Amino acid sequence: MTVFLVGAGPGDPGLITVRGLELVRRCEVLVYDKLVAPELVAEAPADAVRISRDGLPQAMINELLVKFGREGCEVVRLKGGDPFVFGRGGEEALALAEAGVPFEVVPGVSCLSAVPAAAGIPITHRHVSAQVTIVAGRSCKDDLAFDPEQLARTPGTLVFFMGLAKLPAIAAELIAHGKDPATPAAAIASGTTAEQQTVTAPLAELADAAQRLESPVLVVVGDVVGLRALLDGARAESARLAATQLADAQL
Amino acid sequence: MTVFLVGAGPGDPGLITVRGLELVRRCEVLVYDKLVAPELVAEAPADAVRISRDGLPQAMINELLVKFGREGCEVVRLKGGDPFVFGRGGEEALALAEAGVPFEVVPGVSCLSAVPAAAGIPITHRHVSAQVTIVAGRSCKDDLAFDPEQLARTPGTLVFFMGLAKLPAIAAELIAHGKDPATPAAAIASGTTAEQQTVTAPLAELADAAQRLESPVLVVVGDVVGLRALLDGARAESARLAATQLADAQL
Repeated sequence: MTVFLVGAGPGDPGLITVRGLELVRRCEVLVYDKLVAPELVAEAPADAVRISRDGLPQAMINELLVKFGREGCEVVRLKGGDPFVFGRGGEEALALAEAGVPFEVVPGVSCLSAVPAAAGIPITHRHVSAQVTIVAGRSCKDDLAFDPEQLARTPGTLVFFMGLAKLPAIAAELIAHGKDPATPAAAIASGTTAEQQTVTAPLAELADAAQRLESPVLVVVGDVVGLRALLDGARAESARLAATQLADAQL
Repeated sequence: MTVFLVGAGPGDPGLITVRGLELVRRCEVLVYDKLVAPELVAEAPADAVRISRDGLPQAMINELLVKFGREGCEVVRLKGGDPFVFGRGGEEALALAEAGVPFEVVPGVSCLSAVPAAAGIPITHRHVSAQVTIVAGRSCKDDLAFDPEQLARTPGTLVFFMGLAKLPAIAAELIAHGKDPATPAAAIASGTTAEQQTVTAPLAELADAAQRLESPVLVVVGDVVGLRALLDGARAESARLAATQLADAQL
């Protein structure tokens, strides 16, 4: 009798929350994002209605959630990352609230920290960065979604979501407004999955270095990227780097 | 043979990841933070060594992780929220890397988005906020950890971690540097747990309104707080608001 807006986490299916997986396993309707791991979609009951969000406009998603919610179905809306970090979960929540349909938000592990972590980069680090600014790398109107003058002066770590197409413009604008071109920067594609690829370069060279990456890409700019050289080598010695198999988790 | 730096999530034990809980359940040594849910500590094997981090200096934690890691134990370092979002996970990772001990970071749900979500506040929302800045509310030296002039001009949502003691100073400094005193703001104590308490007020009045709250407190400043009135009412109709019982999850 409730719609659950559930964060699926950053890519690795083992990074969904215990509560989130429990809800997927008992739902009657599953509406899922393109970037959600297929292993998680497969965890829904065999007779559950599965609806891929891919290609559907946001207004139709909202309508579907309200419709199934009103019919009394147990609905899981499974979203990549966290529903409320550039996930448009707020829009779906508002549509449900306006329609009087009960809902619950089950947060997820955001790409914000998990993707840099998987590349050996802590987004905060004592004496290096005590502030993190996260920005949508693009806006609906194909403009930059941020004020480059203000952002160039922002201390600490900058994290750009979905920034691949905009990366040349983002880097150029930041540097034009005074950001040091030598600031360490990283672009991470398909973070936390077996396809993860990471490129690091000074900010001025990152767009060139990242040309061969494919979406989704997260971009990190700041001195914390320099810690990667210290952390990633040790990580590589670790036996396990592949994505978690849910079967291993014996749930 | 590895040390796992695991995020326990924001408070509700059901918000640990599937992978994180799996590691807790098979560890030989568990080193846990004060704010970690007791239900999660109880999930470690009965014969596991349990060490509360409470009262131990960071250097000793690092030494313990290296020591047990070198001995070949399976060690879980269970940290509140996410290890790399003000969790000092980077320091522990560096200590392990320098000692040549293999480690893996298992990210967690950060309080950053999950705690506001539990209070009905999406930290990003289309046409309201496309940028989020997260700041440590205090520094080691008891000074403000940020530049108030710069932060007062930062658009979008501001999130302060552990900001209760510093809340009067934070609000006063932001307003003194030009932030609108009427900006919607919220202080959320013990977010996502059964003890959660939320106070909202214009920025100028938040410190007074939040006087009775107890740590840990997360502070959110920005127009997204205004969405709470629309979202929280509908949430209250939802049957389930109490913290998840791990037993319910049938893991």
